[in-house]
Amino acid sequence: MSEESKVTYHPWEKTTELEEGITLLDGADDVGISIESLCGGEGLCGTCKVIIDEGEEHLSPVTEADERVLSDSQLEDGYRLSCRCKVQNGGEIETTVPSVSQNTGGIVLTEGNEMEFELDTTVQKYPLEVDAPTLHNNVGDRERVLAALEEEYDVDADAVDHLIQSELPNTIREDEDEEAETLSFTATVYDGEEIIDVQPGIDEEMYGLAIDIGTTTVAVYLMNLRTGDIEAVSSQVNPQSKYGGDIMTRVRYTRRNENGRQEQQDAIVEGINECIEEVTREAGVENDQIYESVFVGNTAMHHLFLGYEPSYVAGSPYVPANHAPAVVKAREIGIDINDSGYLYWLPISGGWVGPDKVSVLLVSGHYKEDEMTVCIDIGTNGEISVGNEEMMWTTSAPAGPALEGAEITHGVRAQNGSIEAVEIDPDTLEPTLGIIGGEDEPNGICGSGVIDALAQMFKTGIVDQRGQFRDEYYGHERVRKNEDEEVEYVLVWDEDTSIDGDITVTQNDIREIQMAKAAIQAGALVLMEELGIDEVDRVVLAGGFGNYIDPESAMTIGLYPDVEMDKVESLGNAAGIGAQLALLNKEARQETLNIIDEVEYYEIAGTDIFRDNFMKAMYLPHQDLDIYPRVRERVEAIREFDGSVKRGN
Amino acid sequence: MSEESKVTYHPWEKTTELEEGITLLDGADDVGISIESLCGGEGLCGTCKVIIDEGEEHLSPVTEADERVLSDSQLEDGYRLSCRCKVQNGGEIETTVPSVSQNTGGIVLTEGNEMEFELDTTVQKYPLEVDAPTLHNNVGDRERVLAALEEEYDVDADAVDHLIQSELPNTIREDEDEEAETLSFTATVYDGEEIIDVQPGIDEEMYGLAIDIGTTTVAVYLMNLRTGDIEAVSSQVNPQSKYGGDIMTRVRYTRRNENGRQEQQDAIVEGINECIEEVTREAGVENDQIYESVFVGNTAMHHLFLGYEPSYVAGSPYVPANHAPAVVKAREIGIDINDSGYLYWLPISGGWVGPDKVSVLLVSGHYKEDEMTVCIDIGTNGEISVGNEEMMWTTSAPAGPALEGAEITHGVRAQNGSIEAVEIDPDTLEPTLGIIGGEDEPNGICGSGVIDALAQMFKTGIVDQRGQFRDEYYGHERVRKNEDEEVEYVLVWDEDTSIDGDITVTQNDIREIQMAKAAIQAGALVLMEELGIDEVDRVVLAGGFGNYIDPESAMTIGLYPDVEMDKVESLGNAAGIGAQLALLNKEARQETLNIIDEVEYYEIAGTDIFRDNFMKAMYLPHQDLDIYPRVRERVEAIREFDGSVKRGN
Repeated sequence: MSEESKVTYHPWEKTTELEEGITLLDGADDVGISIESLCGGEGLCGTCKVIIDEGEEHLSPVTEADERVLSDSQLEDGYRLSCRCKVQNGGEIETTVPSVSQNTGGIVLTEGNEMEFELDTTVQKYPLEVDAPTLHNNVGDRERVLAALEEEYDVDADAVDHLIQSELPNTIREDEDEEAETLSFTATVYDGEEIIDVQPGIDEEMYGLAIDIGTTTVAVYLMNLRTGDIEAVSSQVNPQSKYGGDIMTRVRYTRRNENGRQEQQDAIVEGINECIEEVTREAGVENDQIYESVFVGNTAMHHLFLGYEPSYVAGSPYVPANHAPAVVKAREIGIDINDSGYLYWLPISGGWVGPDKVSVLLVSGHYKEDEMTVCIDIGTNGEISVGNEEMMWTTSAPAGPALEGAEITHGVRAQNGSIEAVEIDPDTLEPTLGIIGGEDEPNGICGSGVIDALAQMFKTGIVDQRGQFRDEYYGHERVRKNEDEEVEYVLVWDEDTSIDGDITVTQNDIREIQMAKAAIQAGALVLMEELGIDEVDRVVLAGGFGNYIDPESAMTIGLYPDVEMDKVESLGNAAGIGAQLALLNKEARQETLNIIDEVEYYEIAGTDIFRDNFMKAMYLPHQDLDIYPRVRERVEAIREFDGSVKRGN
Repeated sequence: MSEESKVTYHPWEKTTELEEGITLLDGADDVGISIESLCGGEGLCGTCKVIIDEGEEHLSPVTEADERVLSDSQLEDGYRLSCRCKVQNGGEIETTVPSVSQNTGGIVLTEGNEMEFELDTTVQKYPLEVDAPTLHNNVGDRERVLAALEEEYDVDADAVDHLIQSELPNTIREDEDEEAETLSFTATVYDGEEIIDVQPGIDEEMYGLAIDIGTTTVAVYLMNLRTGDIEAVSSQVNPQSKYGGDIMTRVRYTRRNENGRQEQQDAIVEGINECIEEVTREAGVENDQIYESVFVGNTAMHHLFLGYEPSYVAGSPYVPANHAPAVVKAREIGIDINDSGYLYWLPISGGWVGPDKVSVLLVSGHYKEDEMTVCIDIGTNGEISVGNEEMMWTTSAPAGPALEGAEITHGVRAQNGSIEAVEIDPDTLEPTLGIIGGEDEPNGICGSGVIDALAQMFKTGIVDQRGQFRDEYYGHERVRKNEDEEVEYVLVWDEDTSIDGDITVTQNDIREIQMAKAAIQAGALVLMEELGIDEVDRVVLAGGFGNYIDPESAMTIGLYPDVEMDKVESLGNAAGIGAQLALLNKEARQETLNIIDEVEYYEIAGTDIFRDNFMKAMYLPHQDLDIYPRVRERVEAIREFDGSVKRGN
């Protein structure tokens, strides 16, 4: 019996055991790695070449095919055709699949969801070897490099970044002595068109950033463009917040201050550069190794980052400065990545359907599915889209910050010590709490906790369908009037909190939550009305917030339409994930251009239809219980709608 | 009899008198102005529109065609279709032909030569009018502008400069109040592809620069892109001179000083910006109105200006960093024109056939003619090309600075007071002088004077064919030995000069001139040998120097091959003129790409064939008088070749 060999494939560090005679090309399949092989493993094309890092002695010898297809210096550097290279006589082998040979699907993880796609980056690196110039072959450096790219990789680039061109005579010769007959270097090409880097020798490291600029928070993901992995993440409060917490205040600031636009651009650029410093330090990556950054954010964040005049998109008729993807050299804006690298903003569909929304749609994909879906991105503005492959409408609803725990008496940001889950015993009205970080003494209640609390108070009958405390519970020790004569429910007694006093949910808190959820719910209902539908097949929650709320509680208060519970799905921070996807896959990037053509925006602000729906949506879960049959059933399993608890449940 | 009208066409300010009933379109022909008229004057296409500045009352009324083709605001602004607009009842009319309606050949003057070409600039301005956005038509600003360009002018641009995009929402609205139903602005488009400016209202002013960076001198021409006129010229000593007088010293400086490349780039950029300040001030033009600058210079000047590593093009195998035209945003280099404008370097054929040489060939055009031509650009390096439409060889000969008056005992730059022409009486040996500026007392002798003097001394027999003073003239008062025991000819006696002492031409001076002319002559002879020809049909002198030398004297000493005198032509500063041409005419620019493909470079340095030819070329005009039959004839009309003067001539 033949011995098995242990082969580890880099850069993924995936290991498999192969029987004698199996090629490294075939072995890669075992661990889900797909190596390019245009000739079908016939040893003709060279696209399957790999580098043998360790264990050459456990492989079949170099073949004629290797010698024919690979250059001398590649052979010296340990390159082999993986289709010709068989394991033999056992032992351990380490091999690196260079990015040019990779044909592998990457994976983005979203809190339990996986998304598969092909790794096909806009930035590509190509190791090249050209004849050194002689008096009889003294074509210029630029033309020599471009011709080699075309010949060896069929890449028809015709531009060289100015800064790269300046140093080109040095970089292509740096790795060689004066007598060398060949020059060896690696060209980095953007979108198959422009050389944005040239490095001596073989250097296949390349990184990119996916950046999500929220009105409140900025998140920067450092991604390895060879593997698709996230190497590090950093986030911070959007430094433009000092010019206003919301979009309109920031836009007004640009109008009222001569340099307001520049100031806000400088602030966000500085903030992002701080995040970049953090992720590069954490991952041990040089700024120069980052060749592209894909951005998402709403249209105002887009304009303010790029320094575009934001006034006209902020007011009627909401005209953006552009729809097309903004593609700008990093050095034009001062983002600390490779000077010749690019910043790429996903496109804008319309005034309020910005790159963030386009990114969410890219990830949710429901614009190309049969199922009728509501997709909700909860934030200060709730971004809502309803539709399927036939038709897609989208709108923006003014939810305010209550769902994120703001403007709530004991509301706090989600953090260690905050109450994130609440269950109330229908008999005793005693609550059971889930506290972030497993702390004993809570410091307040965060968004998901508030939604849970209200849903439980409704289910147990403490509040009625209008969100009002029922009179009959007054006198229960946990339902009382506070100093302001306002009714409230005591979630935690003073002695069990880390703050000074009880943690309660007041009548006013409930009103805030009702208004916030009603705005989002009404937005969805208006779009459904526009589409002529009464119900949807699926609910998709985008935004980090969707990961934390209890989907049943959210449906109980009517945050979104009534569907089967297993039809509620959370995408995590879909906007940021879409940016990652667009960074790693050209086709996905192209797809965003289709999205902006297909999506229609419905402006609900100030319309009668929104006002009507909003009034009805103030109820829990809605004035018309017929459209919430599943919620009704779940509530009625506990109590009658007059509030009386069904004892024994 | 009908009255005649007087019509003045702007921007040329050309005036003509037209009989009643003649259209402004037809009238333009009278003064050599060609107005676009795609529909052939049928009032359909609108391409012939002009603006009536004065005298509307002397024109036929607005027609239905005007109303159909022109927009309301164009009519308000005085636009009319020139094909529909007839003069009537006499009077004076002033009309402006906007650049979009111009189809006119421009003219570049070169010291008596004229060059006609169509004015077809890479930069174009397009007045536009678009519907103001509404809630039902709220497409983004960028897409609105690009669509209008496509629709109104069939210009399929797809890029907007980042800086222009930033301000786009403001600029397109600046000229209108909030209630306006249309927005009116002018878009400036580069090469039909990228919007590089947007201005409110109608603004058709546009300028460009043609810049000739010589090793010694920089010249900047400010050109009106609407008319093709030179508005102002400025020149200065190349500020890189402080890093070395010649190319090799400057290149060595970059190798020996860490920031040497940057220093030299900074120096030339600063110098050019000073010239730009001068020409804009003189012409009353704003820097922002300059949208492009076309550059010529040798390959080293090209590399040092752009900040490219120059080491490898300076030494064997003379590989330039690039051949393709360098096209760089002005702001990347810091040239003070419109920030979104472009710098465009003509392409490089090979190491020593740089943009300057390509430019000279563009102007001389002899690579596409039947006649076999020698083209010589005299400078420290003599740039020589020989060929015709079949084949073209070019080389560079190390002439040194003697022909420009340097390294000559009484040599001076061409300036007021310097001797530029010399005639010597064969009987008395008394000279007659031509002095620049008509001054009485000369201060020295400039390049053209030195060539004249030597030619005259040879013709009159003072020196023999080897350039040596003949013994028999010793003793003549003007032929004497100086303090260094060196023979010299006295051109001007002390008392008649503005300097301290006589002005003379020494034996050493003659040697310097011989070596300089021999290098150029030998270069041409080598190329002729390579082409297998004994004689040429035509001699073309490029470079400012060619304007000043006496063509017969230059041929007499053998600076170039023997041809009929009327076949010697001076192009003036052909390199600079080529830059102007490439600035004004896209086709000419395209043509330079053909030139670099067709021209072959012959490296003569260190070759035996050059050495042999150089030795023979040291003679006056050449060792072999058979190849200078016309010179021989002219000399023999005065004297025998033994030096004895033919009395009575």
